[in-house]
Amino acid sequence: MSPVALDQTNSAVKPLPAATKTMPTVSREVLTRPNLALWVTKDHKIYQKEEPYPSCGPDDCVVHVKATGICGSEIHFWKSGRIGDCCVTHDIILGHESSGQILEVGSNVQNFQIGDRVSIEPGVSCWECDMCIRGRYNLCPKVKFSGTPPSDGTMRRFVAHPARFLHKIPDTMSFATAALIEPLSVAYNAVRRAKPYLGQPILICGAGPIGLATALCARAAGASPIVITDLEQNRLDQVRAMGFDRTLKIDLSWDRLTTASKMREVMGTDCLPQIAFEATGAGSSINSACYALEDGGTLLQIGCGKPDIEIPLMSMGFREVNIVTSFRYQQSWPVVIRLVAEGVLGDVDALITHTFPVERTIDAFETCADRSNLAIKVQIVDE
Amino acid sequence: MSPVALDQTNSAVKPLPAATKTMPTVSREVLTRPNLALWVTKDHKIYQKEEPYPSCGPDDCVVHVKATGICGSEIHFWKSGRIGDCCVTHDIILGHESSGQILEVGSNVQNFQIGDRVSIEPGVSCWECDMCIRGRYNLCPKVKFSGTPPSDGTMRRFVAHPARFLHKIPDTMSFATAALIEPLSVAYNAVRRAKPYLGQPILICGAGPIGLATALCARAAGASPIVITDLEQNRLDQVRAMGFDRTLKIDLSWDRLTTASKMREVMGTDCLPQIAFEATGAGSSINSACYALEDGGTLLQIGCGKPDIEIPLMSMGFREVNIVTSFRYQQSWPVVIRLVAEGVLGDVDALITHTFPVERTIDAFETCADRSNLAIKVQIVDE
Amino acid sequence: MSPVALDQTNSAVKPLPAATKTMPTVSREVLTRPNLALWVTKDHKIYQKEEPYPSCGPDDCVVHVKATGICGSEIHFWKSGRIGDCCVTHDIILGHESSGQILEVGSNVQNFQIGDRVSIEPGVSCWECDMCIRGRYNLCPKVKFSGTPPSDGTMRRFVAHPARFLHKIPDTMSFATAALIEPLSVAYNAVRRAKPYLGQPILICGAGPIGLATALCARAAGASPIVITDLEQNRLDQVRAMGFDRTLKIDLSWDRLTTASKMREVMGTDCLPQIAFEATGAGSSINSACYALEDGGTLLQIGCGKPDIEIPLMSMGFREVNIVTSFRYQQSWPVVIRLVAEGVLGDVDALITHTFPVERTIDAFETCADRSNLAIKVQIVDE
Amino acid sequence: MSPVALDQTNSAVKPLPAATKTMPTVSREVLTRPNLALWVTKDHKIYQKEEPYPSCGPDDCVVHVKATGICGSEIHFWKSGRIGDCCVTHDIILGHESSGQILEVGSNVQNFQIGDRVSIEPGVSCWECDMCIRGRYNLCPKVKFSGTPPSDGTMRRFVAHPARFLHKIPDTMSFATAALIEPLSVAYNAVRRAKPYLGQPILICGAGPIGLATALCARAAGASPIVITDLEQNRLDQVRAMGFDRTLKIDLSWDRLTTASKMREVMGTDCLPQIAFEATGAGSSINSACYALEDGGTLLQIGCGKPDIEIPLMSMGFREVNIVTSFRYQQSWPVVIRLVAEGVLGDVDALITHTFPVERTIDAFETCADRSNLAIKVQIVDE
Repeated sequence: MSPVALDQTNSAVKPLPAATKTMPTVSREVLTRPNLALWVTKDHKIYQKEEPYPSCGPDDCVVHVKATGICGSEIHFWKSGRIGDCCVTHDIILGHESSGQILEVGSNVQNFQIGDRVSIEPGVSCWECDMCIRGRYNLCPKVKFSGTPPSDGTMRRFVAHPARFLHKIPDTMSFATAALIEPLSVAYNAVRRAKPYLGQPILICGAGPIGLATALCARAAGASPIVITDLEQNRLDQVRAMGFDRTLKIDLSWDRLTTASKMREVMGTDCLPQIAFEATGAGSSINSACYALEDGGTLLQIGCGKPDIEIPLMSMGFREVNIVTSFRYQQSWPVVIRLVAEGVLGDVDALITHTFPVERTIDAFETCADRSNLAIKVQIVDE
Repeated sequence: MSPVALDQTNSAVKPLPAATKTMPTVSREVLTRPNLALWVTKDHKIYQKEEPYPSCGPDDCVVHVKATGICGSEIHFWKSGRIGDCCVTHDIILGHESSGQILEVGSNVQNFQIGDRVSIEPGVSCWECDMCIRGRYNLCPKVKFSGTPPSDGTMRRFVAHPARFLHKIPDTMSFATAALIEPLSVAYNAVRRAKPYLGQPILICGAGPIGLATALCARAAGASPIVITDLEQNRLDQVRAMGFDRTLKIDLSWDRLTTASKMREVMGTDCLPQIAFEATGAGSSINSACYALEDGGTLLQIGCGKPDIEIPLMSMGFREVNIVTSFRYQQSWPVVIRLVAEGVLGDVDALITHTFPVERTIDAFETCADRSNLAIKVQIVDE
Repeated sequence: MSPVALDQTNSAVKPLPAATKTMPTVSREVLTRPNLALWVTKDHKIYQKEEPYPSCGPDDCVVHVKATGICGSEIHFWKSGRIGDCCVTHDIILGHESSGQILEVGSNVQNFQIGDRVSIEPGVSCWECDMCIRGRYNLCPKVKFSGTPPSDGTMRRFVAHPARFLHKIPDTMSFATAALIEPLSVAYNAVRRAKPYLGQPILICGAGPIGLATALCARAAGASPIVITDLEQNRLDQVRAMGFDRTLKIDLSWDRLTTASKMREVMGTDCLPQIAFEATGAGSSINSACYALEDGGTLLQIGCGKPDIEIPLMSMGFREVNIVTSFRYQQSWPVVIRLVAEGVLGDVDALITHTFPVERTIDAFETCADRSNLAIKVQIVDE
Repeated sequence: MSPVALDQTNSAVKPLPAATKTMPTVSREVLTRPNLALWVTKDHKIYQKEEPYPSCGPDDCVVHVKATGICGSEIHFWKSGRIGDCCVTHDIILGHESSGQILEVGSNVQNFQIGDRVSIEPGVSCWECDMCIRGRYNLCPKVKFSGTPPSDGTMRRFVAHPARFLHKIPDTMSFATAALIEPLSVAYNAVRRAKPYLGQPILICGAGPIGLATALCARAAGASPIVITDLEQNRLDQVRAMGFDRTLKIDLSWDRLTTASKMREVMGTDCLPQIAFEATGAGSSINSACYALEDGGTLLQIGCGKPDIEIPLMSMGFREVNIVTSFRYQQSWPVVIRLVAEGVLGDVDALITHTFPVERTIDAFETCADRSNLAIKVQIVDE
C-alpha cells in the first residue's frame, strides 16, 4: 500500500489514499480538517498553527490523532524551556501521549491497514546500539522521542510515525483510554523495575498522574498495603475516591522517627513500606521516602525535579536502602494494552479529569498548568 | 504464665489454666471435651482416638484447634503409606492446616495471651542451620513438620505448638479462613519463587486445591491472562464459577505443536504462558506444560507425583525453558494473613467445599478421597 | 542457500575485489586457493568439495577462514543425521567455530576494512521478533545458524557473513584462539545464566570441551571449590594438568547418599555444590548432579543427549533444586574476546589438542570422533 | 558490659580453666599476660588499660586475640566521636577485626575446643527479628557489634565472644591473615550485592583498605577491566604494585563528559564501568562515579562520609543508574575464609602495611591516622 503523492494545499479537501483494502471507519471528511499543531517556543510561549499533511515514509503510517494527554514534562518545557540538559532551542511541536486511527500505510508496512485503531509509542529507538541489543531500548542514545527536543511530537491532527512503534488496540478500547497507555507505561516500567512481591507494603509519593498510574499498576501487581502521600489534602481526597484508602498528608517538618511512626500508623498493620515509588522528584519527598522505608527497602525514583538532590546516604547505607531509577519504558505497550483491556488495572479512565477539543488545546494547557484545577490527566480529543 | 501440671483423665473436666490476664472468649466447657485425634497407620488405616490434654512447654502455647483442612498429601499417607522417602512407619496423628484459639501460654512466651485467635504454621525449623540462616527455613534439615512422619500433627482438639510458629489473625477472619493460610502459603511460596510480572501470561496445571490457591495468588500478583488446565471438565466448570474464564481440558494425545496451538487459542491474545505452575506432579501434565510454555519460560513445579519423571529436556534446552521447584513455604504467614484480610486474594473461602465436625473426621477423609465429590478443600471444624 | 555444483576454474586467480581502502595484510596468493568446503550428507557421510568464491551482500563481509574448531554437535550431525528435531535432509556445509581475515567489505558496512582480523558469531538473528527485542536473540525463531540445517556453515576457505556478526580481535590474539570464542561463548552464556557467586562451590559434569570451557569461565567468575567429574579417568587426568585439582570419577552405581558423600569428600571443605554445570546431557550424569547438589541448588544444563530424560523431580522438589537451561549465547563475543585477551580465563589454548590443515579436514573429523584420542578441541587451520 | 576498673593482680598467673579436653597449643604463659585493652573516650582520646580476664558465658568462648586490624571507622570514633547517629557517649573498648586462639569453651558450646584457631565475626545478631529470619542479619536492629557504641570491642588480649560468631581457620592461615577476614567480608558483601558478571567492566573509587579489598574480591569474581581511582597518586602507585594496572587520578574539576572520556581511555577497550564500587563516601567521588558509569549501571556505595550527600539524580534517572548500598556483611566468614585459603583472592596479605605489638597499640593508631604513612591496614599483634 504505497503512499500517494498529492498536490494539496493544507486546508483543502485531501483525496483519500487509494486503498486496496476496505477502510472500515475512516471518513473522507476527516481529511478536510486542518492539521492543527501545538508548538512551544524557547521563550516560554505555546501556539497552535496549521501544518501540512505529513508525508508517509515506507516504514511509517499516517495516523489521525484522536486523543492526546498533556504530560507534566510539557508544562515544564513550556514554562521552563528545559528539562535537565534537554532544552527547547527552537520551536517544536509537543505531544507524546496519543492514540488514533491509521489513514495511510507505508510501502514496507505489512501488519497494518487503513482504519486500524492504534496507540502510539513515542520513543523510536535505533535497534542497533548496545542498549537496544540488550533489550533496554529506552536507553538508546539515538532515540527520537516525539515532542522532546529536537523531535516534533504528536500534538497535531495528522502525524506520520514508524509502524514498528504503533500498537493496535481492541475495538472495545476508547481512544481516550488508548492515550493513557503512555503514562501507564511509565508506571508499568517503574513497577517492573521495582518488582514488588505479592503482599509487599509500598508507598507512593505524589498523587499526580504518574503517582496514581503507578498506584494502579502496583495494586494490580499485588502490592499491599499501599499508602499514597501528597502535600495537598484535596489531592488525597481525589485518591480516596479512586479506592485507595490509605493516604497521608506529608508534613515537611517531620524528622525520620516521626515519618516512620506516621507511616506505620497509616499502614495499619505494623508494616513499613519496602518499596517507595517516588513520583515528585522533590528533595523533601525523596528524603521523606527514605526515612519511611523499612530497612533493606528500595526507593524507586520516577519523576525528577532538580538536577541535583541531597539524599540521606549515610542512613540509607546503614540500612541497605537502595535507589532504583526508571526512565520511560520499553516493551510495555502490548502488555499494558492487554492489562487495560482485561480490566486488571481497574478504572484507568478515572485518571482523565478534563477533556478539550483539539481546537482548544491552549485552554487545555492552561487548565493543566493551574494546580487549583486538581487536574490529573487533561486530554485533547478529535472525533 | 506457667503451664499447670494436672492429674487428669482425658475425658474429665480440665481445670482452666490459672490466667492472670483475662480470657476473653474461651469457655470452660471447651476443656470438658475429649481431645479427639486422627491417626494413620502404616497399613493404610485411619482411626480416631482420644489423646491426653497436651502439656505446654515453656516456648509453646496450647491451642484449641477450631478448623483443619485435609491435604492431598494426607490422603497419600493414608492410601500409600509414604511420600517419597517419607514413610509412615508407625501410627502418627495427621494434620497441618489448622487454626484455633489459645488455651494456655508457655512461661517464656511474651506476645500471646489466652483467647488469642491464631493460624498455625506447622513447620518448626531449627534457626541454627545454614538454611535457616539464609532465610530458607523451609529447607531446614531438622524441621519438625506437623503430621509428617515422624512428627504428630494438628488433627486433634488440643495441641501444643511453639509460639514462634503461631500467628494472630484479625477478629474479622473466621477460623475456617485461617485454616486456609497453610495451602495459600504453599501457593504464595510458589508465586514468590516464580516472580510473575504484572501482565505476564501464565498457566496453572491442575484445578485441585493447590492449583486453585495458586491461581488466586497469581491473579493477585497481576499475572494475566491466566489459563487453568485439568483432565476433567467438571473440575474446570468449578473453576469458571470462581471467576477464571480461560480453562482448557487437556487431551493427553496432543503433541507439542497442538498443545501450543490450543494454548494460544485459549489465551486469546496471541500469547503463550511464560510461567506454568504445575500442581499435579503427573508426568503427562509436566510435559504438556513444557510444550505450552513460550521460549524462555519457566515451569514452576509445586506438586509431585512419582519420584522420577521424564521431561523433554532437549526441547527445553533449545528454548531456555527452566524448571523451578517450590517446597512448602517460609516467611509466608504474616503476609498471607494480611492479603486474605485485605481481600487482595479475592474469595478464598470458595475453596472450602465441604465441612465436617471433628467427630466425623473419618467421613471427611472418605469424602476427600472420593474424586467424584469434586471436593476442593474439606475442613474439619470444632466450635 | 543450497550448494551449487559449478564447473568453474576454481583454482584460477580470482581478481582482487576493488578495494578503495588499503588491504594491509591480505596477499593475492590467498585468493588463488580453492574454496574447499566440508559437507555432510543425510546418509552419514562427510566429504570435501570446492565451492565458488562467495558473493558479498551489501551488509556482509567475505572472510578468509583461518581457523575452525569441530564441535561435538557436528560429529552428531555426521553420525546420527540429526539433533532433536533438527535433521540433515540434504547435503550442507558444516562449521560454526571460526575466525579469519576480511577479504571483501559490503557496500553498507561501515566499521570493517579489508585485512581486519575477526571472530565469527555464527547465529544470525532477525532483530525484529519479541525475543530479539527482549535481548534474548539466541532464542530468535528466525535465526540462521551457520552449519545447522538448513544453513550452510563456515567450514570453507571463503565465506560471506553479515558484518553485524563479525567481531574484531586484538592483534595479539591468534586465529586459533579466536576460533575458541564460540565454545567459550557457550560456556560464558551458561555461567551468566547460573550467576555463580564469588566463592560458591560448583560442580562441572563432563570433561569434554564444553565442560572444560565452562570450568575456565566459572573459575574466572570466582566459583570455588570446583569439582569436575567424568566417567573416564584419563579425561580427568587431562583436567588436572589444566590446573583443576578436584576431580571425581563417577560410578553410575552410586545412590544419592553415596554421591553426596563422595562429593563432600572431594570438595574437601564440608561443602556440596550449589550449582552443577551439566555438560554431558546423559541421564545418569544429570541424576548424579541432582543428588550431589546442596539443597536449594541449581542444575545448569548445557549439553543435551536424548530428547527425553528422567529426572528425580520429587527429590528436587523437596529440596528446591532448580534446572536452568542455557542455549548457545547472546551478547557474548565482545566480552569473551576481552576476557581472553586480558588473560582472565587463563590458558584457553590448552583446550586445543589437535590441529589439521584445511585439506585434511576429513582426518580432523575422524580424529575428533575417535574417543580414544582424548581430543578436547580439534581445529582446522589455513595460513 | 561496661568496663570495670578493678584493682586486681593482673599480671598474676591466672589458673588455667579446668579443661576436660586437651589443650593442644595453648601455653600457660599466655594467661600470665595482662589483659590490655584499648579505650576511646567521648572527648577524642584513646588509652590502654588492663582489664580483668573475661568470664565465659555458657554460649561463649574466651579468645586470646592474636591479631587485630584498625578500621577507618575507629579513627573516626577517636577523632570525631561519632559516625552518624552512633556516638561515643562513654569510654568503650574499640576493635572488631580480630583473630585468635580459644582459651576457654562455654558449657553449651559443642563445636569448639581449647586451642582452636578462629576468626571473630564481630556482629552478634539476635536470630529472632524479621531481618534475621530473612537472612539479612546484618540489618538486625538488636545486633551487638564489637567496638561500636555501646558495645565493647576486641582490642584486648582476652575477650569472651559467642561461639556462634567464631569461625575456625585452617592451620595454614596466619592470625594476621585471619584478622583480614573482617574487611574482606565488607568487600565480599558489597560484591555479592552488586553481582558483577564475568567480564563486566567496573570502577573502584578509593584506594584505601576497603577499596582495595573490594578490588581483590571483584577481580576474583571475574570483573574486568577494573579501574581504580583516587585523589592521591602515591596511593595509586601502591595499587599498581598490587597488580591493578588501570588507575586514574581523579581531578575534581572534571565535568560529566570529561569524566566519562577519561574513564573510557583508561578502561582501554571502549568500555565504561557498569558497576562503580564507591568506597570513600565523599560527595565528589560519588558524583564522579555516577558520571563515569555506563547507562543502566549501578553505584555500589560502601563507605559513607557525611550524613547527607548531593547526587545527580536527574542524570541518573535519565540513564537508569541505580544506587545499591552495602552494610557490613552476613554469611560471609565461612566463604571468605575458604576464598583466602584457596588463594582465589590473590595476595590479601599485601593489604597489611604496618604491624605493632599489642603494647604499642597507641602508636598503631597514630600511624594509621597519619595519611602521609600511606598505611593500608595497620595491625596489632600478640604472639
